[in-house]
Amino acid sequence: MRAMAKAPVLTPQAEDFPRWYQDLINKAELADNGPVRGTMVIRPYGYGLWERMQQEMDARIKDAGAQNAYFPLFIPQSYLTREAEHVEGFAPELAVVTHGGGKDLEEPVVVRPTSETIINEYFSKWVQSYRDLPLLINQWANVVRWEMRPRVFLRTTEFLWQEGHTAHATYEDAREYAARIHKDVYADFMTEVLGIDVVLGRKTPRERFAGAVNTLTLEAMMGDGKALQMGTSHELGTNFAKAFHTEYLSKEGRQELVWQTSWGTSTRMVGGLIMSHGDDQGLRVPPRLAAVQAVVLAIKGDDAVLAAVRSIGDRLRAAGIRVHLDDRTETPFGRRVVDWELKGVPVRIEVGPRDLENGTAMLARRIPGGKEPVPIEALATLLPAVLEEDQATLLRESRARRTSRTSEAATVEEAAEAAAAGGWARIPWDVLGPAGEARLAEQGASVRCLLAEDGSVPRSDDAPGTVAVVARAY
Amino acid sequence: MRAMAKAPVLTPQAEDFPRWYQDLINKAELADNGPVRGTMVIRPYGYGLWERMQQEMDARIKDAGAQNAYFPLFIPQSYLTREAEHVEGFAPELAVVTHGGGKDLEEPVVVRPTSETIINEYFSKWVQSYRDLPLLINQWANVVRWEMRPRVFLRTTEFLWQEGHTAHATYEDAREYAARIHKDVYADFMTEVLGIDVVLGRKTPRERFAGAVNTLTLEAMMGDGKALQMGTSHELGTNFAKAFHTEYLSKEGRQELVWQTSWGTSTRMVGGLIMSHGDDQGLRVPPRLAAVQAVVLAIKGDDAVLAAVRSIGDRLRAAGIRVHLDDRTETPFGRRVVDWELKGVPVRIEVGPRDLENGTAMLARRIPGGKEPVPIEALATLLPAVLEEDQATLLRESRARRTSRTSEAATVEEAAEAAAAGGWARIPWDVLGPAGEARLAEQGASVRCLLAEDGSVPRSDDAPGTVAVVARAY
Repeated sequence: MRAMAKAPVLTPQAEDFPRWYQDLINKAELADNGPVRGTMVIRPYGYGLWERMQQEMDARIKDAGAQNAYFPLFIPQSYLTREAEHVEGFAPELAVVTHGGGKDLEEPVVVRPTSETIINEYFSKWVQSYRDLPLLINQWANVVRWEMRPRVFLRTTEFLWQEGHTAHATYEDAREYAARIHKDVYADFMTEVLGIDVVLGRKTPRERFAGAVNTLTLEAMMGDGKALQMGTSHELGTNFAKAFHTEYLSKEGRQELVWQTSWGTSTRMVGGLIMSHGDDQGLRVPPRLAAVQAVVLAIKGDDAVLAAVRSIGDRLRAAGIRVHLDDRTETPFGRRVVDWELKGVPVRIEVGPRDLENGTAMLARRIPGGKEPVPIEALATLLPAVLEEDQATLLRESRARRTSRTSEAATVEEAAEAAAAGGWARIPWDVLGPAGEARLAEQGASVRCLLAEDGSVPRSDDAPGTVAVVARAY
Repeated sequence: MRAMAKAPVLTPQAEDFPRWYQDLINKAELADNGPVRGTMVIRPYGYGLWERMQQEMDARIKDAGAQNAYFPLFIPQSYLTREAEHVEGFAPELAVVTHGGGKDLEEPVVVRPTSETIINEYFSKWVQSYRDLPLLINQWANVVRWEMRPRVFLRTTEFLWQEGHTAHATYEDAREYAARIHKDVYADFMTEVLGIDVVLGRKTPRERFAGAVNTLTLEAMMGDGKALQMGTSHELGTNFAKAFHTEYLSKEGRQELVWQTSWGTSTRMVGGLIMSHGDDQGLRVPPRLAAVQAVVLAIKGDDAVLAAVRSIGDRLRAAGIRVHLDDRTETPFGRRVVDWELKGVPVRIEVGPRDLENGTAMLARRIPGGKEPVPIEALATLLPAVLEEDQATLLRESRARRTSRTSEAATVEEAAEAAAAGGWARIPWDVLGPAGEARLAEQGASVRCLLAEDGSVPRSDDAPGTVAVVARAY
C-alpha cells in the first residue's frame, strides 16, 4: 500500500465518477479512444476480460443448444426497410458504404447494426419443414451504431458482441427459449461469473427493441447508483418471419410462419464490470472471470527469490489456479503493486528474501483489501477458498448496494427524485403508466424494467400489481 | 456405402474440380453466398471448422508470446495514404463509408483491409522506451477487400482472420520473430493439425505484401495440383515506423525507429482444407481438427439401441474423444450416412439391433474408407490409435501429391507447361528472374515462393542456387 501515501492514482469515485471511470480505463490500460469518433481500441488487458467473458458465455450458449455461425458485415439497405419498426429504430445510427472496389455501388450497403434482417433472409432458405425447427444460431461479431454521445465500452460506434437468433414452430417454444437465455445463460453468467447482481424484468413498450413484441432485460446498479442494461433477450413474434417469408411446413401439412427470438450481450459488460466492482485503487476482477487470478511477484531479483516465485507458480497452477509471474525486478516494486491493484488481480503473492527466511510469502487480497504473511506450503490449499470467498464478496456487495439504494416511490416526482439522487425507485406501473414514463424521460430517468408483484418477470405489459423500476441509466 | 450405388452426391473431382468444390460446400452445409457480391454466410458446420482452427492457432500464438487485442474496423482514409506502397496495393480493394449517423462524413472512413496503419498509430503512443519492446499483438477480426472474382472461403470480399503485429528493437529480433511465426506457429499448425503439407519459402519482390521488405509464405498443393497460399508472415522493416513515427528511446539514450512484422491466416484455410483432403464423397476432416471425431449412429430407434449409443458415447468421451450422437432415427439411415460422409467426420460407429446381439458395432472409417465390425468393449481403446493413424494418412497423402506432381523445369516454357498441366515446377531463379516471372503471369502461372538450395527459406532475393516454385494458384 506504499502508493496510498502519495497522490491518488485515480480521481476518487466520490469526487467525479465519470472521470474515475475514464482514469481507470486509461491507467489500467484497458482501452483507448479510436481515431474515428466513438470507436475504441481494446488493449490486451481489457481484451483479456472480454475473452474470458466470451469463453464462459460461449459454453453456456452451447449448453442451451445454439450453434455458432457467421453472417456478413454488409447488409443490403433494402433488407432493413422490410420490417417497418426495425428500420425506424436503426436508420439514424447506420453507417453506409457507398463506394467499393474503386466504384460507386449500385445499391449502398449498410454496416450491420444487428443481424435480424440478413439472418432471416437465410433462415427463410434453410427452414423448410417442422423437422428443421428449432433453429438455434449464435454469432460473435462486431456491429456498428453511430453514437452521438460515445463513452468507452458503454456506448461505442463499433462494439463486439454475441447475437443469438432462433426460429421455433410455436409461440410458446419461442417464448420459453427467450426466457431460458435470459435466465440460464445471461443471469447465470452475470451473477455466477461476473459477480454482478442483476434484476430480471420486462421492458415497457417504449423501451422495447425495434421489431420485438417483448424485450426481457437484465439491469444492474453501478457504483454511482445509475443503471446499466447488461443484456437483452427479445421475443420477435412473427414480425421478421412475415417480412422475410420465413415459413415451415407443419406436421399437419400447413405453411406456417416461424416464431423467433434474438438476444445479445456486448463489450458493454466490460464497462459494467468496472463500474460495479471498481474502487479508488482501480478495478477488482472477480476470480472466476480473471485470466490472472493470482500474480506472484519477485520483490528482488536474486536467484533464491526467482526460484521460489517459479516454484510457487508451478504449485498454484497444479492446484488449478490461473497464475502470472511478475519477475520484472528492474521496475520498482511499489510501481508494480500499484499496477496490479489498478488491474484488479484478485490475489498478489509477494516474495522477498526476508519472507523466504521465514518460509512465508505476503498474501495481498485486492477484493477485501489487506495483506498478511502466509506459509508458502499452505498457499496452494488456501487459495481456492480465498478466491471463492472473494467471488462471493463481490456479488454480496453488488446486491447490498442495489438493495440499500432502492426505494419505494408513490408518485412520478418521488421516483424522478430518487433517480436524480443516485438510486433506484420502485413505483406501481398503474401509477406511472406511459404518461408518467414520458415525464420521467424529461427529467433524465427511465423505466429500466417492469417486475411482477412477486418479483418475477411479468407475462404481459399490464398485469395487475406490476412494479416499474426507475433509474437514470448509462 | 449404400449411397454409392445411386447417382454421385457431388460432381466428381475429375470431371470438374471447381464445381466439385462448390457442390461440397453446398451439400455439406459449410457456407452460402452472401447477398452482397463476394460475401459469404458461414454455416454452423463450416464455422465449427474455423472455431477449431482458431482454438489451435490461438494457443500457438499465445505460446509465441503475443497477446490478443482489438482495433477499430473503421480507419481514417488519411492513415492509409501514409505508407506509399501500402496504399497503392490496397486502394483498388477498399470499401468506403461516406455516410454515418444520418449525415455525410467530413472525412470518409475505410473498412479495414488489414490493420498495419491503425495499429501503428497506437504503437507510436504505447512504445516509449526499449523496455516496451518487443510489443507482440494479435487480433481476431473481419476484414474487407473488394473482390472482383470471388470464390467462397478462397477469395471473399469479407473474410475472418487473425493478424499479428509486432514491434522490435532490432532488425534481427523482428526477422527472427517473423520466422518463428512462419515455422513454429503456422507451419506447425498446418502440418500437425490440418494435416496439410506446406512448402515454406520467400516471396519474390513482385508477390510481396504491399509495404513489406520481405514476405514469408506457406504454399500448399490442392487436389487439382494448383497452389494455395495458406498464410504469410512479413518483415516490415521500418516502413510503417517511419510513416507513423513509431520510435523508442534506446538503452543508449537515442530515439530509434522500431522494426516490425505482421502475419496473417484466414478463413481461406477452410477452403484449403476442403481442396486438400476432400474426395468424391465429400470432405475428410483431420481428427486433430475435427470438432466431431466420431459420430455414434443409432440405426433404429429401439430402446436397447439408443441406450447402447449413449453408453458408447459416454465411454468414448471418457477416453478423450470428441463424440456426437446421431439418434435421428426418423431420418433414413442411408441419408444420414451420406451426410456424415459429406461432412467428413473421421469415424462412424453404427449400432443396430443385430450388432448388439453380437456385442459389436460397425466401425466405418472416412479417411481410408471401409468398415468392419468391432467389439463394443474394444472401441474406447481402439479409437485413439485409429484417429492418429488417419491424421498421419492425410498428411502423407498431401505430401505424396506434392512430391509426385512437382517437376524440374529448365526453361520458363517448361515451367508454364507444368503449371498448366496441374502441377508445380521447380526452376532456378537465375534462369527465371523477374522477366521470366512476368512471362509466367501472361500464362496464368506465378512464382509461389523461392527456396534456398537446401530447401530452406532464402535470406535474400538473389542468393546463389535459389529455386523458384512455379504453379497456377487460387
